[in-house]
Amino acid sequence: MTLGSGAMPNSFDPSAAAGLPERDAGLVARRRRALGPGYKLLYRRPLELVRGDGVLVYDRDGAEYLDAYNNVPCVGHSEPTVVAAVAAQMAALNTNTRYLAEPILDYAERLLATHDTGLETLMLATTGSEANDLALRIARHATGATGVVVSAHAYHGLTSAIAELSPSLGAKEPLGLHVRAVAPPDPGEDAATAGPAFARRVAAAIDDLERHGVRTAAVLMDSLFASDGLRSGPAGFLAPVAAVARARGALFVADEVQSGFARTGEAMWGYQRHGLAPDLVTMGKPMGNGVPIAGVAARADLIERFGSQVRYFNTFGGNTVAIAAATAVLDVLERDGLQANARAVGAYLLDGLTRVAAGAGVLRAVRGAGLYLAADCADADVAGRVVNGLRERGVLISAAGPDGASLKIRPPLPFTERHADRLLGALADVLADPATEG
Amino acid sequence: MTLGSGAMPNSFDPSAAAGLPERDAGLVARRRRALGPGYKLLYRRPLELVRGDGVLVYDRDGAEYLDAYNNVPCVGHSEPTVVAAVAAQMAALNTNTRYLAEPILDYAERLLATHDTGLETLMLATTGSEANDLALRIARHATGATGVVVSAHAYHGLTSAIAELSPSLGAKEPLGLHVRAVAPPDPGEDAATAGPAFARRVAAAIDDLERHGVRTAAVLMDSLFASDGLRSGPAGFLAPVAAVARARGALFVADEVQSGFARTGEAMWGYQRHGLAPDLVTMGKPMGNGVPIAGVAARADLIERFGSQVRYFNTFGGNTVAIAAATAVLDVLERDGLQANARAVGAYLLDGLTRVAAGAGVLRAVRGAGLYLAADCADADVAGRVVNGLRERGVLISAAGPDGASLKIRPPLPFTERHADRLLGALADVLADPATEG
Repeated sequence: MTLGSGAMPNSFDPSAAAGLPERDAGLVARRRRALGPGYKLLYRRPLELVRGDGVLVYDRDGAEYLDAYNNVPCVGHSEPTVVAAVAAQMAALNTNTRYLAEPILDYAERLLATHDTGLETLMLATTGSEANDLALRIARHATGATGVVVSAHAYHGLTSAIAELSPSLGAKEPLGLHVRAVAPPDPGEDAATAGPAFARRVAAAIDDLERHGVRTAAVLMDSLFASDGLRSGPAGFLAPVAAVARARGALFVADEVQSGFARTGEAMWGYQRHGLAPDLVTMGKPMGNGVPIAGVAARADLIERFGSQVRYFNTFGGNTVAIAAATAVLDVLERDGLQANARAVGAYLLDGLTRVAAGAGVLRAVRGAGLYLAADCADADVAGRVVNGLRERGVLISAAGPDGASLKIRPPLPFTERHADRLLGALADVLADPATEG
Repeated sequence: MTLGSGAMPNSFDPSAAAGLPERDAGLVARRRRALGPGYKLLYRRPLELVRGDGVLVYDRDGAEYLDAYNNVPCVGHSEPTVVAAVAAQMAALNTNTRYLAEPILDYAERLLATHDTGLETLMLATTGSEANDLALRIARHATGATGVVVSAHAYHGLTSAIAELSPSLGAKEPLGLHVRAVAPPDPGEDAATAGPAFARRVAAAIDDLERHGVRTAAVLMDSLFASDGLRSGPAGFLAPVAAVARARGALFVADEVQSGFARTGEAMWGYQRHGLAPDLVTMGKPMGNGVPIAGVAARADLIERFGSQVRYFNTFGGNTVAIAAATAVLDVLERDGLQANARAVGAYLLDGLTRVAAGAGVLRAVRGAGLYLAADCADADVAGRVVNGLRERGVLISAAGPDGASLKIRPPLPFTERHADRLLGALADVLADPATEG
């Protein structure tokens, strides 16, 4: 099998529902009717999870799984500080930003302090898609231009305007006429040349848009290139791209929905690893540990113009409960030293993966930054067997990348060396199984 | 003062911050720096709310306000059943729709059962803006067309694609070239002619789009025309509009973000008051009583095509906590008979408003459906004085409409006759104040 363009890696094939246990088959059939064919499940044998605790999740039969996949619960499933903060604020008041409140200001000031000094203003949204859509509106408003340059297999969200610049959605979702998609560096590409070469490709895309009468409003990049199959290094290769964007009058937008909130271990934000200064930064998924909150950090002058001229009110964005959750997330990140943990355990896991891969023929190009790691298989079939072999051994990861052939390892941040050992042991077992290679 | 196009009615004027108490002025200044000029506050003297309980809210000094404005907490602020459901689910597991779960299916089936029989499939999103954006994507996918007809002062959301069909955002947010905005019936327009006349205007807009080479994908209408200043009656006038949409190959999309979840008292959904069969229905704000959740209910064939071809995954949409909250909302709506309450107390309040208005010269065109009511003032200045006079007397409403001259009364649904009396008493007092008329 090769994965069709736009298909979701590691998704359950509904035509195999007959082989499932009766309860699961029943739920699959009800999903199909009530929610339609758009709702995909993970794994050949989907999971019915009912409880989570840190990096562990449990199905309805009580079976335990090591979660090495979910990044939304970044400080851990059911983290007590977040749970308590949300419960307390829900019981007190859940309301919007049209009333004065101090916690949202404390949070905004604290979050902005983790960003580089040029980013002085925060606008809040509810989802990462909304944050990217807002950043795009701000960039178009500021530049009077419409063009956007993204990476070749980017995913930035689900709104009409963002879907048309998310090439990973496949051919059924046409790219906008004002969009160009540019290949990021290959894994392991030479550090000295990868950045300048990528910047030349971006410049050529801007040229091509101009040749079609379209000026470029934004160069929008996920600092980890997660949906491109993880282009985590060499750190620094994005700086020349940001410089080209600026030189050509476009804004550089760092999409930190995947790479933010200490995930990479090396920095709070992925763009900081690359040593560049973005004009706009978008944040989402892990910001509230599962409570919907997202945001755009921006140069003050950009928000000054946009906010003075355009009405923007986000009903749930920065509501009192979301702020309580997001504040608790920062508290736990700091209290538990989760950035340092991501760096240390990420390095440990990268070493271990490299060692396990060397002992088997299935995995190559092991790579990662902190607790976001990847390795490539020959094709999506092999990756699927590895992912599902791990699932059967109680370890959850998934697959990603343009052809679905890359393993995607992205656990909650309180992942320890002991957890890494459990993952590595299960992986070695899967790779030793003759059925895995096919 | 006349309200500038796109300005927000009843918003605090930041240039008046010097007149505020020191703490408030300090918070206003911090907001301006950290969040930028886009963040508006309500009232001449903004409120710092810290606690809510049913239809009552309290500021940090303990002063009590009757909330006759907030529709997001539809079953009441800090409603214990919702609070408990969220706390319990947060402590157990908060995860996405890529794992099997029964509660989301129970919820979807139960919610769809409240809709007309043609609507058989539910897709979940996180915000009403995302729901409208998704409905637009589905409509465009199904029809292969791009045009959209909306009402003259519509507001449907904040994404790029939805903002450009939200004329209430004003001239700084240009309408899309494929968008036409059509005047809804005037308040009190004759029941027999209002619908056919409105339908003729919609047909003319579709003609005009076609004259520009654009086929119409959707006619999108808020069933209460809330941002048009509330066009709550005569119920039924929307049915001929839906019929025209269908006859011309477009889909009729009912935006129930304002009018849904029993608000009108007469029906669970605003479109049901009008006796029409929508192709798509969008829901948001009150769905989770403040916990972000939104959705699109659709004809099964539309989702069948869209969901099979287009990847759509909404990270927070229908997560386990949102489903717990949304389920609790339906439980409380049913348990407390809040639709019947909205009908009875809405009628009581409408009577009272009519009586109070008759005794003063300030208010005209009193109207409403259930617990969404409006009345018109001479201009935005007068409306602002009424709204702020009520605020000073401990009652919260706001202003709305194309010129900001309509009072907007939209309390949480557990609003009783006693609460209505309190509102009416305060309103009579404000109207008796010679300063109100100006």
